[in-house]
Amino acid sequence: MYGFVRLLRSFFVALCVAIIPISVAQAADPLPSWRDGPAKAAIVDFVNRVTTASGPDFVAPEERIATFDNDGTLWSEQPLYFQLRYALDRVKALAPEHPEWNDQEPFKSVLADDMSGVLTTGKKGLLQIIAATHAGMTEAEFRDTVLTWLNTARHPRFGQPYNALIYQPMLEVLAYLRANGFKSYITSGGGIAFMRPWAPQAYGISPEQIIGSSIKTKLEMRDGKPVLVRLPEIDFIDDKAEKPVGINKFIGRRPIAAFGNSDGDLQMLQWTTAGDGLRFALIVHHTDAEREWAYDRQSSVGHLDKALDEARAKGWTIVDMKRDWKTVFSFDKK
Amino acid sequence: MYGFVRLLRSFFVALCVAIIPISVAQAADPLPSWRDGPAKAAIVDFVNRVTTASGPDFVAPEERIATFDNDGTLWSEQPLYFQLRYALDRVKALAPEHPEWNDQEPFKSVLADDMSGVLTTGKKGLLQIIAATHAGMTEAEFRDTVLTWLNTARHPRFGQPYNALIYQPMLEVLAYLRANGFKSYITSGGGIAFMRPWAPQAYGISPEQIIGSSIKTKLEMRDGKPVLVRLPEIDFIDDKAEKPVGINKFIGRRPIAAFGNSDGDLQMLQWTTAGDGLRFALIVHHTDAEREWAYDRQSSVGHLDKALDEARAKGWTIVDMKRDWKTVFSFDKK
Repeated sequence: MYGFVRLLRSFFVALCVAIIPISVAQAADPLPSWRDGPAKAAIVDFVNRVTTASGPDFVAPEERIATFDNDGTLWSEQPLYFQLRYALDRVKALAPEHPEWNDQEPFKSVLADDMSGVLTTGKKGLLQIIAATHAGMTEAEFRDTVLTWLNTARHPRFGQPYNALIYQPMLEVLAYLRANGFKSYITSGGGIAFMRPWAPQAYGISPEQIIGSSIKTKLEMRDGKPVLVRLPEIDFIDDKAEKPVGINKFIGRRPIAAFGNSDGDLQMLQWTTAGDGLRFALIVHHTDAEREWAYDRQSSVGHLDKALDEARAKGWTIVDMKRDWKTVFSFDKK
Repeated sequence: MYGFVRLLRSFFVALCVAIIPISVAQAADPLPSWRDGPAKAAIVDFVNRVTTASGPDFVAPEERIATFDNDGTLWSEQPLYFQLRYALDRVKALAPEHPEWNDQEPFKSVLADDMSGVLTTGKKGLLQIIAATHAGMTEAEFRDTVLTWLNTARHPRFGQPYNALIYQPMLEVLAYLRANGFKSYITSGGGIAFMRPWAPQAYGISPEQIIGSSIKTKLEMRDGKPVLVRLPEIDFIDDKAEKPVGINKFIGRRPIAAFGNSDGDLQMLQWTTAGDGLRFALIVHHTDAEREWAYDRQSSVGHLDKALDEARAKGWTIVDMKRDWKTVFSFDKK
């Protein structure tokens, strides 16, 4: 009997030896694209504290909810929010069916690549562009056009598909949180229906964990089958004070960690950190004109002003992209 | 070496012998409160087919989405939807602060227990009751009043807390689906905020998997902290043709199985079964006046008419409560 026990022990020791090197390698650096510094240390410290069962900051796995803005936090947003680029490209693709657009704003300016002309049409013009490019088709048809665009369009500066401009260090944060029992959500000002076709695969996040702005949809019968048709009517704008509203509606719990990059994320960060217990707030500060872009208070895209001041005042984690990230995009890697 | 291998094999055989009786017991009857019959057989057959990796109907775990109506499908809804009972009880509880209600409809009728008087005030009256009982407080305050009500109110017929009127056979279906890799959602005409305080514990479903009707909320600063305040304005009514709309918005995938009990669930069942591959639709038919209630085409609560015809025409599974359920409520058990 003693021999049997000893043999079993040898067997398990052999198993453990085989497994340990992998675990140690992961534990040694869960965030290999991050340089050592205060931002990386703050992320690791937070995760360690909320997952240490014997510690004062332990959080049960089902309460480990993290929310991430998308544009400028998980992928780039310059020179234009990518969904706006999609909409402008769609106007051009649809123009042959709409000869009247040659004399009609905002379409006339879109077709002439006159962005300042588009901008002067204001909110009304933007809604017309959304109606023309995001509505009037089924959810399945919209999904197809988004995927086709991602497969064919290229970013003007990098010559890469737009979804190649996802931040490698943030993918590592998502994976690190997932490995530590977190459920991460995207809470974007961008459209739910624009993100769900590609974001699950890109980020390892299920469609139901993707929250964003939406237009209304309506159930209709087509060829005897029920389909959801997209209407030219705003349902929800998931930005600023509406971000906590959307999180509460979709998730029903307050996150313990939130990640953003602009004033549009400020209320989400405030609401997250106002909860009880240990909380984590992070802002991606775009400081790297060489590898990505450098912008904050003066930029209309990804405007970061009040949230930067509040982050400094409250000691939230601020990522200095240039200093903190070894790699920005996966295509940068040697 | 041969001895070592043989010893290992003995060890694993011993392990398997220890485990098998449990598995066999579970496999023998995953639905012990269901009598053998076509409804139970249909549920088991569907689950077996979509989980058999080598079979033609296999569905990957992440696509195993099931949606359940709540009122009349997971718990009772007679003589009044329980959330309406909550609202009427709240009017009475709040009445001392509102002396004007004694002369104001719909409150006057509520306070006089005159339900037909309440009903004659129509949709306008109902919205006034919702505004008075569901809005004007924070989400956290509303949650507390719901939990307090559940802890104190008793169902007039059974003398039990309202959440004791959950159907034991349906809890078994939820557990059976969960054990087979399904992610189940509640998609109720009732309020998200009314269900989330108690439904996760009762059904084993996370708050984020509970979809329903909602009123609008607004982020406000109170005592220097951001809170979500409930507004007297309808945001979304999750019923009939809006059920697929809500499912698409919250989940972003079409369910492969849907469970309902009334015409309010018809479009959800149609949309679910219109998808590709094997699909499952089930209707709980209330046929048991003795243990629960018997009602369908003539009832205003849980009205079941067109959906019953369509279920019969299309061969959806119809649960005959009296015939199919050995136990209805857990407090019935001997």
